[in-house]
Amino acid sequence: MGLALAGALADRGHTTTVWNRTPEKADGLVANGVHRAGSVAEAASASPVTIMCLKDYGTMYDVFDSARDALKGRVLVNLNSGTPKEARAAVAWAAEHGIAYLDGAIMVPPPLVGQPGSVFLYSGSRDVFDEHRATLAGMGDPRYLGSEPELAVLYNTALLEMMYATMNGYLHATAMVGTAGVSAVEFAELAVGWFMPTVLGPMVAEEAPGLDEGTYPGDLGTLEMNLNALEHITRTSEEQGVHTGQPRLMQEIAAQAVAEGYGGNNYLAVFEVLKKAPRTR
Amino acid sequence: MGLALAGALADRGHTTTVWNRTPEKADGLVANGVHRAGSVAEAASASPVTIMCLKDYGTMYDVFDSARDALKGRVLVNLNSGTPKEARAAVAWAAEHGIAYLDGAIMVPPPLVGQPGSVFLYSGSRDVFDEHRATLAGMGDPRYLGSEPELAVLYNTALLEMMYATMNGYLHATAMVGTAGVSAVEFAELAVGWFMPTVLGPMVAEEAPGLDEGTYPGDLGTLEMNLNALEHITRTSEEQGVHTGQPRLMQEIAAQAVAEGYGGNNYLAVFEVLKKAPRTR
Repeated sequence: MGLALAGALADRGHTTTVWNRTPEKADGLVANGVHRAGSVAEAASASPVTIMCLKDYGTMYDVFDSARDALKGRVLVNLNSGTPKEARAAVAWAAEHGIAYLDGAIMVPPPLVGQPGSVFLYSGSRDVFDEHRATLAGMGDPRYLGSEPELAVLYNTALLEMMYATMNGYLHATAMVGTAGVSAVEFAELAVGWFMPTVLGPMVAEEAPGLDEGTYPGDLGTLEMNLNALEHITRTSEEQGVHTGQPRLMQEIAAQAVAEGYGGNNYLAVFEVLKKAPRTR
Repeated sequence: MGLALAGALADRGHTTTVWNRTPEKADGLVANGVHRAGSVAEAASASPVTIMCLKDYGTMYDVFDSARDALKGRVLVNLNSGTPKEARAAVAWAAEHGIAYLDGAIMVPPPLVGQPGSVFLYSGSRDVFDEHRATLAGMGDPRYLGSEPELAVLYNTALLEMMYATMNGYLHATAMVGTAGVSAVEFAELAVGWFMPTVLGPMVAEEAPGLDEGTYPGDLGTLEMNLNALEHITRTSEEQGVHTGQPRLMQEIAAQAVAEGYGGNNYLAVFEVLKKAPRTR
């Protein structure tokens, strides 16, 4: 990812200096005119803005401990993932050391960085964002979410979860039809070619206002009916010998919502269960 | 759903006779020229094709036990959901009683029946499907999946699972950002307006051939990295006080795939775990 970020910035004519724990990873960039720093402090001193993408916040403190003085009065943009608590702690750490700080999240895989459709999320200091917007735009469309520093990592985590849940749903469904000899390519034609964009996408899109209002009218179908369908999915998974964890969990969550009195509401009422910490596990 | 099916057929000029356990449910249809039968046998005798939509296969046997003679030599189209085993048993039951039988599944909610974009899946007897295709087309685009009778219910169950998994992923993600005061409408703008169609849809669409081949090249990212991301999602869910069941389950499944030697493959290798019965639960 670091290669992709530095490459995108250099391609747009920004003077770019890179540092990586494994220096030779930058050989290709250096051949294209990017500067290679011998230390983190040297890299941080070379530019008004330092963009970092590391494994996590703990690694950030380790790596930048030696470069705190170099960063003083400069801007540090953090693109690694973390938790909201970690994002807030990083803002305090930066303030303590006189570093202007912005938290961000990369929403595309490395090959799409700098390409049309690339989106980067940012939160925290509006001033830092506005002042360096043009630089940030070199990597992808920069979207500012608000002054709460945790917004970027929280959005990132939430969107990742959507991605994994959707992917797991698709894969488990593919495993299910596979038990009757249907190939993944054949199933994808209907599941991804028709169902996802035509039925699923619009259905999800319409739900948001009801979630904010906490109203889940059951006039087009009730959670009781959905629970029946989920039990059915679990039973079919058992019968076909595929994994049952996912349908069983969804069934448990729906059953809890029914037990809490939402049986006559629509399926979205499971939101009331998902908003809370789990009772058991 | 029965009302929607009968209404769509009658609207297209088919002579339609209905039966429901609660006769007055058909008052609106009857006012529009649909015939109301006093018994299941009377309804079955009235037409060459009987279309049924009940809670499950058990209910089908209860309801049609009294109409077996009336159905002899006629066609019964079953649109309720069930398991593959139940679908195969129903074919045997129909054959035993001299009933031509087709299994199907409705892929749209009642308001979309008969509308453009409505899709119905069928499997089993190709002859029955071909002969009555025009009648079936009155309810929605009829798609024939193959001669194995369980294909319609299995596709239906698999697509439903995709729907629930995607919906749960979206709802849990909305709960997650909600902890920082982000409204569902605000989150949907990015999550459903941009992420789902632009990133998620195409990503899922590209995966099918790899699943059939069982090849999961890790060159753009490995399952080890994804496991790290899933642990992170679980940790953030805990920290924010929302439900943790879903990210934790996905983490467990990914961890099992890593334990089975797929750590250097890409995320899709979890398919190898999902294809099998679970080890514990």
